Amino acid sequence: MIKVTILGNGNLATHLTRVFIKKKEIDLVQVYSRNIEKMKHLSEKVSITDNLLDLKDADVYIIAISDNSIAEFSSQLNLKGKFVVHTSGSITMDTLKGDFSRGVFYPLQTFTKGKKIKFKSIPICIEASNEDDLIILEKLAREISNDVRRITSLEREKLHLAAVFVNNFVNHMYQKANEICDDNYLPFDILYPLIKETAKKIESISPMDAQTGPAKRNDSKTIEKHLEQLNSSQKEIYTTLTKSITNSFTTK
Amino acid sequence: MIKVTILGNGNLATHLTRVFIKKKEIDLVQVYSRNIEKMKHLSEKVSITDNLLDLKDADVYIIAISDNSIAEFSSQLNLKGKFVVHTSGSITMDTLKGDFSRGVFYPLQTFTKGKKIKFKSIPICIEASNEDDLIILEKLAREISNDVRRITSLEREKLHLAAVFVNNFVNHMYQKANEICDDNYLPFDILYPLIKETAKKIESISPMDAQTGPAKRNDSKTIEKHLEQLNSSQKEIYTTLTKSITNSFTTK
Repeated sequence: MIKVTILGNGNLATHLTRVFIKKKEIDLVQVYSRNIEKMKHLSEKVSITDNLLDLKDADVYIIAISDNSIAEFSSQLNLKGKFVVHTSGSITMDTLKGDFSRGVFYPLQTFTKGKKIKFKSIPICIEASNEDDLIILEKLAREISNDVRRITSLEREKLHLAAVFVNNFVNHMYQKANEICDDNYLPFDILYPLIKETAKKIESISPMDAQTGPAKRNDSKTIEKHLEQLNSSQKEIYTTLTKSITNSFTTK
Repeated sequence: MIKVTILGNGNLATHLTRVFIKKKEIDLVQVYSRNIEKMKHLSEKVSITDNLLDLKDADVYIIAISDNSIAEFSSQLNLKGKFVVHTSGSITMDTLKGDFSRGVFYPLQTFTKGKKIKFKSIPICIEASNEDDLIILEKLAREISNDVRRITSLEREKLHLAAVFVNNFVNHMYQKANEICDDNYLPFDILYPLIKETAKKIESISPMDAQTGPAKRNDSKTIEKHLEQLNSSQKEIYTTLTKSITNSFTTK
């Protein structure tokens, strides 16, 4: 049994709490949050606290709070000699400040409040300041996922950057398409099958090989016609990406 | 039985041929291509020809060739009084030139050579110059898909534009992320679950509500750190999209 404590009650903390409670090999000993009211529904299943001086003994303490608060929050912990990890993709392991061993437990996925997610296929990127702790973290990660990878802080930083492109930026493309549909009284859901297939396609062929469309063909007539129909913000995106796609296929 | 002839042997033509052959209520009477050699494998299942003067009688003639060739190709057809449709998202119905009834049969999906696809869930956008033909087209479309929609040329033009954002541009984001992974010796496949979930998420919440990341939070520290790590082409995309995301959330 691995004894785990979760610090935080946001989106990821909630998902982790839910999955850890279910696993026989994981003993979720405690969940901490400043706001204990929000956790009342958990009190029958797990010990809850809003007092950092009340933390019970655990093998791993998992901080799942917003990136910008991690440094300061960790410096308040009184966990001398214990093993403390954060769950962020964008900050280094050494952002954790305190008299304890450090580590990172980063599930590479987007989590939505209220939307259940299967952890089994989510890559969990782990890192620790010493090998013994890494083994504990690896064991913990394998309890919930089939895809556990040792990833350094530097590698994780790059992964997070790539994730901005495939998640944040891709989602913004969906938003722009939604806008175009709304403006023309067209149902956005007509695009769902195309969206899904576009995401699936790159698992069998590379994005470079999967590229199609007027920018790739350098079809200036269609590009011109498209630009005429867009508002200024859409036009700026269209122009930048069209240029970038065209360059990808002419310089290589 | 609806008698259908396919004109073309590219990507979409191949997928349509395959699905039409399987359907009992569809009689695929002929497939035309300039290059008959490439269609030899079909000759046991369907009549093939490379001669436009040899076209047999059919209820619908489906032109599935590249957008830019449709006008000229259609003007060569000797199909007086027949019903001829194209399959393009980006051009109007009236692009078809000839002494026949016009229509459009546009499956809103990305097709990959050699990768099988299920037509059942693909939206098929249909249009015709008269109601009788539209009914034939609707019946044909329903044989292969559960999602058949009457869409005008003007609406289809807008849909195609939206499709450029969710397909061409989204795929380019995948390519940029792939680049970042390759440059840092990281496996691109670690991003697959995130890519899939990002695509699935917007079926339950709007893209606007699904948006996360430094641009939405206006987190200039993280944005700055990201920009430092990108090459000039990646930087231009990052800057344009970050500005657009930030604007979406400050002006609304």
